[in-house]
Amino acid sequence: MELHGYFRSSASYRVRIGLNLKGLSFEYKAVNLLKNEQRAEEYTRLNPQGLVPALVDGEQVLTQSLAILEWLDETHPQPALLPDSPTERARIRALAYGIACDIQPIQNLRILRYLQSEYGLSDEQKMGWIRHWIHEGFAALENQLHPAPFAAGDKPGLFECCLMPQIYSAERFGMDIADYPAIHRIMLACNEIPAFIEARPENQPDSTL
Amino acid sequence: MELHGYFRSSASYRVRIGLNLKGLSFEYKAVNLLKNEQRAEEYTRLNPQGLVPALVDGEQVLTQSLAILEWLDETHPQPALLPDSPTERARIRALAYGIACDIQPIQNLRILRYLQSEYGLSDEQKMGWIRHWIHEGFAALENQLHPAPFAAGDKPGLFECCLMPQIYSAERFGMDIADYPAIHRIMLACNEIPAFIEARPENQPDSTL
Repeated sequence: MELHGYFRSSASYRVRIGLNLKGLSFEYKAVNLLKNEQRAEEYTRLNPQGLVPALVDGEQVLTQSLAILEWLDETHPQPALLPDSPTERARIRALAYGIACDIQPIQNLRILRYLQSEYGLSDEQKMGWIRHWIHEGFAALENQLHPAPFAAGDKPGLFECCLMPQIYSAERFGMDIADYPAIHRIMLACNEIPAFIEARPENQPDSTL
Repeated sequence: MELHGYFRSSASYRVRIGLNLKGLSFEYKAVNLLKNEQRAEEYTRLNPQGLVPALVDGEQVLTQSLAILEWLDETHPQPALLPDSPTERARIRALAYGIACDIQPIQNLRILRYLQSEYGLSDEQKMGWIRHWIHEGFAALENQLHPAPFAAGDKPGLFECCLMPQIYSAERFGMDIADYPAIHRIMLACNEIPAFIEARPENQPDSTL
């Protein structure tokens, strides 16, 4: 499989974690968002939406990180990213969407660029924007996380694939994760696991470009 | 089942369509977002995230529209909201997330309120913001939709549950759906189906409050 992504893209980072948790090897193809390579024809032929990541498996091209993670769980069931029971699956998906729908899309690069170019937001105002929406989302998640090592119990899965990239972004923008004890506890547990460590932005080949 | 929602909320509207497509009856409980009832303790006891919708089934409370729709498909499989094959499921989920992650969260009420209160955006600027992100998302979807009546073929499902509420919002803000021929074609097909008609905001009891 080939994963087309960008080292700092949350969505790319989610899929790297998922592939690693499944023990699947993949070739990493860097798409530089700062150079708008995601809008170049070479990439939009793969993903007409012009967003990273895209996962190529033979003739198939998969897009949208959460759709890719669900597909991985359906086609490579072990170890599972989602629990067995429909109720628990719904609970974990809801937590994951609490990040993937309610935090990340609001504070990603294309939004920040637009806020600056259209409304002249300063760097400080953009930082305020980012922190506000991450705080809203993290505070809501705090109330919903159970006191187990991971959201679903003793193993990380779909939620942690979304959480760790969001934490990376929060820390990059100066937030202290210790302010969110349940999230912090999960973070410390994930930080011990090679699948998460290897997926980190700083461990990708394009991190130094 | 009880559905706690708001007539104009896209996420509530998605779940109404899903329940109707499955032929499941439910009691509708209005949560007035303009009065911030979603932040009142009565509601946050149900959903600590303070967002609509929440679906109550006996002792269970389900939140996040997409998690609810996946749960409905797992617990009430027929008629299916997702295709059978993992590849097709991934394609339809990716299309749905193209709305649920990449359009709706950026232009919903809480974002518009924040843009106004924090950065003083005028009504006209807010309209520009809304239209920009809907256009970006719809233009990308146009390139990905096949020439069948619905995204997955001859039956509507998860994608259409997300699309029709987004179209409602686009039209409300003065966009012409005919500018997006593939989306327009799907819209016309959905407009003939009672499950979609009954789910419309104007057909909810709280639309006149």
